[in-house]
Amino acid sequence: MSPHAISAQELAQRLGGTLLDCPPDRQLTEVLPLEEARATSVSFLANQKYLAKAKESAAGLLLVTAKDPMEGHARIALPNPYLGFAQAVGILHPEPTPEWDGSPVHGSARVDASARIAPGATIGARSVIGARTIIHPGANIGEDCVIGEDCVIFSGAALYRRTTLGNRVRIHANTVLGSDGFGYATAGGIHHKIPQVGWVEVGDDAEIGACVTIDRGALGPTRIGKGTKVDNLCQIAHGVRTGDHCLIVSQTGISGSTTLGDHVTLAGKVGVVGHIHIGSNTTVGGNSVVAKTLPDGSFVTGYPARPHKQWMETQAALNRLPGLMKKLNTQK
Amino acid sequence: MSPHAISAQELAQRLGGTLLDCPPDRQLTEVLPLEEARATSVSFLANQKYLAKAKESAAGLLLVTAKDPMEGHARIALPNPYLGFAQAVGILHPEPTPEWDGSPVHGSARVDASARIAPGATIGARSVIGARTIIHPGANIGEDCVIGEDCVIFSGAALYRRTTLGNRVRIHANTVLGSDGFGYATAGGIHHKIPQVGWVEVGDDAEIGACVTIDRGALGPTRIGKGTKVDNLCQIAHGVRTGDHCLIVSQTGISGSTTLGDHVTLAGKVGVVGHIHIGSNTTVGGNSVVAKTLPDGSFVTGYPARPHKQWMETQAALNRLPGLMKKLNTQK
Amino acid sequence: MSPHAISAQELAQRLGGTLLDCPPDRQLTEVLPLEEARATSVSFLANQKYLAKAKESAAGLLLVTAKDPMEGHARIALPNPYLGFAQAVGILHPEPTPEWDGSPVHGSARVDASARIAPGATIGARSVIGARTIIHPGANIGEDCVIGEDCVIFSGAALYRRTTLGNRVRIHANTVLGSDGFGYATAGGIHHKIPQVGWVEVGDDAEIGACVTIDRGALGPTRIGKGTKVDNLCQIAHGVRTGDHCLIVSQTGISGSTTLGDHVTLAGKVGVVGHIHIGSNTTVGGNSVVAKTLPDGSFVTGYPARPHKQWMETQAALNRLPGLMKKLNTQK
Repeated sequence: MSPHAISAQELAQRLGGTLLDCPPDRQLTEVLPLEEARATSVSFLANQKYLAKAKESAAGLLLVTAKDPMEGHARIALPNPYLGFAQAVGILHPEPTPEWDGSPVHGSARVDASARIAPGATIGARSVIGARTIIHPGANIGEDCVIGEDCVIFSGAALYRRTTLGNRVRIHANTVLGSDGFGYATAGGIHHKIPQVGWVEVGDDAEIGACVTIDRGALGPTRIGKGTKVDNLCQIAHGVRTGDHCLIVSQTGISGSTTLGDHVTLAGKVGVVGHIHIGSNTTVGGNSVVAKTLPDGSFVTGYPARPHKQWMETQAALNRLPGLMKKLNTQK
Repeated sequence: MSPHAISAQELAQRLGGTLLDCPPDRQLTEVLPLEEARATSVSFLANQKYLAKAKESAAGLLLVTAKDPMEGHARIALPNPYLGFAQAVGILHPEPTPEWDGSPVHGSARVDASARIAPGATIGARSVIGARTIIHPGANIGEDCVIGEDCVIFSGAALYRRTTLGNRVRIHANTVLGSDGFGYATAGGIHHKIPQVGWVEVGDDAEIGACVTIDRGALGPTRIGKGTKVDNLCQIAHGVRTGDHCLIVSQTGISGSTTLGDHVTLAGKVGVVGHIHIGSNTTVGGNSVVAKTLPDGSFVTGYPARPHKQWMETQAALNRLPGLMKKLNTQK
Repeated sequence: MSPHAISAQELAQRLGGTLLDCPPDRQLTEVLPLEEARATSVSFLANQKYLAKAKESAAGLLLVTAKDPMEGHARIALPNPYLGFAQAVGILHPEPTPEWDGSPVHGSARVDASARIAPGATIGARSVIGARTIIHPGANIGEDCVIGEDCVIFSGAALYRRTTLGNRVRIHANTVLGSDGFGYATAGGIHHKIPQVGWVEVGDDAEIGACVTIDRGALGPTRIGKGTKVDNLCQIAHGVRTGDHCLIVSQTGISGSTTLGDHVTLAGKVGVVGHIHIGSNTTVGGNSVVAKTLPDGSFVTGYPARPHKQWMETQAALNRLPGLMKKLNTQK
């Protein structure tokens, strides 16, 4: 994927760390999470919670601190492995220079003869547009995108490079797929950007409303399942993966790396924290905040979200609270 | 409105239902709600709540279940009338094929000589642009739109087909008018799209902020009243109708078919559920959720919204609750 | 700044007020807040809270009511000084007519030879694009903008006139900088627009996500500090000034004229009311509403936001409230 490569020795030097238990000329070609890393991958340990995973990782090189008990593992010891990770991503996955040729539809794009591209729309290098797909005026498709058949992309929608859409997908106006996730390694009060080098995948028959933002994954995909419908002004952060046939109502936000099962309904203005799972067939009431993993078939409401019945009882009790307090004060 | 027509017999066949009490060659030309339907209209009964309305409807044909007590009314009995409705809309109101002629301003558009169209803006077929109106770079006006006089449309604003603006309307950058409402008929866990075939109307002197989304009605208009001001990042769902001179502050969301009287103020981040009415001269405090119809002159806050004074008392009591609980535990 | 000038006499006439204690031929050239006004400025007193400030103001002319105790100060007495202010801004700072020359990049724009402007992007009159800056397809840069070096502006981003960006700033797709603030002077139920004639400034190394809206100041700047990162779908109202190195997470909204210190973190979906200050090194928990000024180093959560520990206690007590009420009812 990345045409870049660097030796372990050189990477240690550029990150200002110490190379340990590793042949200096080992070639590294990409950064990947601990579970997905292979012999050519750099990965990192920034939280003791993942120590066991780090020990089992197939990564060719790990970024760790000098105190992490990782003897025998090829590693670079450095003060801030998370900052090192941000820098390593920038070294191995630099942002490609755009390849514009002056034409709205790049000469290397492959547009099916039955697709229709409006005036004012742009298509980037090497992108593929499927049969009968309609691209409205002012939509901007980046480089290396793959758009399936019978899709409709409305005006001003922006697909960053490497976005892929299945068949029969509708993307409404001014929606953004593939913007950078909100990822920074903070050191000394400065927020150092973690380059976001993943992509966005949208399954068949999905529909995405207007002014929705779906960030690209940090290293891998952000994924919208088949038949899932996302309403206007929702935010789907980097690395989120929804199941199939979910309904995500307007102004909802889902934080990074959270996963949804199938047939999940998030009502309007819901917030979901990062790194949790919402089980299949779950319904979350409007304006709720989900802060913990939920089992399949849950029905929750409130902030933090709790079983809907319990939330109803709490609200009823709350309404009677001022009266209760008055009575207790009178009794004394 | 629709050039399409179908016989009752053929519609029953295509929906997989049974035609009852209806001449098989009755011609149907549009789908309309029960109250607005006429002799050429298909309408539907998906909720027993509307049984009386269905019996009084002038619709030429109704979609119902076999169990609905609608003897004597021309109808198609089928297992899921709501799904049938979604399919009938698709049959009678198919999405028109865009009519682009390769020019940013379509040859059939009528642009007043005093209007100014920027480079990079596009105007669709048959749209009309009034005197002294200014269209900024990258704004996209769809087909069959009518823009009044002295309007300003900023960069990247997207007006879907059939949007109409009064005079002196300002639409800020990247706002979307006329995107599809979030309407699906769910059957067997699959969300079948209800084609959204209405439109958006904005009254004189209205101003709509940046990145606002206003969905087209499912079958009729979504309407913003005269002099109403909508702040950035608000969501106005399909079929909403605001009165005149309302203020709708940033990040507010109004769900489908809800109506607002005149001079209503919704403070920032308010949520309003669907199918209710907010009376004139009402103020809703920031971050509240309105879940029920409100009479004229209300002042409410909270989730769910309650009279503002009551909400203040509840919040004060809530702050004293941990202390109260400690005391009660000590007493025992 | 404004090439327009008007005599005190004529302004009084056009606003329908009475000129007092002022030479009729005094020339006024701009409207400014009380603190910033100078001899050529019009300012206004619309709230008794600012009476002392009005008496100390260097403004050449003040808009006041007949009852305001401002004898000896050059002034126009009129029934609604706030409405007069709105009208005076319109008179002295009329919206400039766009100067398009038919080319996507205006002939007077100064684009560094190393910058790259994509097909479908537009650059307004007199704007300056710095070295190595990349402007993606469909981005629209207004007139008199100044973009620094090594910036990246993604597709569909809209920069209104007079926006300035530092160096190494990233603006994601469909974000809007410089839209009008939500400012109206309401009189007789009609919301009269206060023309928004300020601008937006973004500091070095800032990153602004997708579909973010940052309104221009009413009279001066809205300012994003150096190294501050703003996530998708946030709203930053007119006159807000953030410090350096803040993190503002998705779907947060900050109301007008509020200021943030340095290193402030606002988690997702936070709301902040207008005209307050959030001290440096403060963290606000997700989905909270900040309604009062906060000292440096605060950590608050809830609606209204309170110290995080207190909010946790309140939530715990709230969960036990239904049980408590049942017990108290049984005791009687």
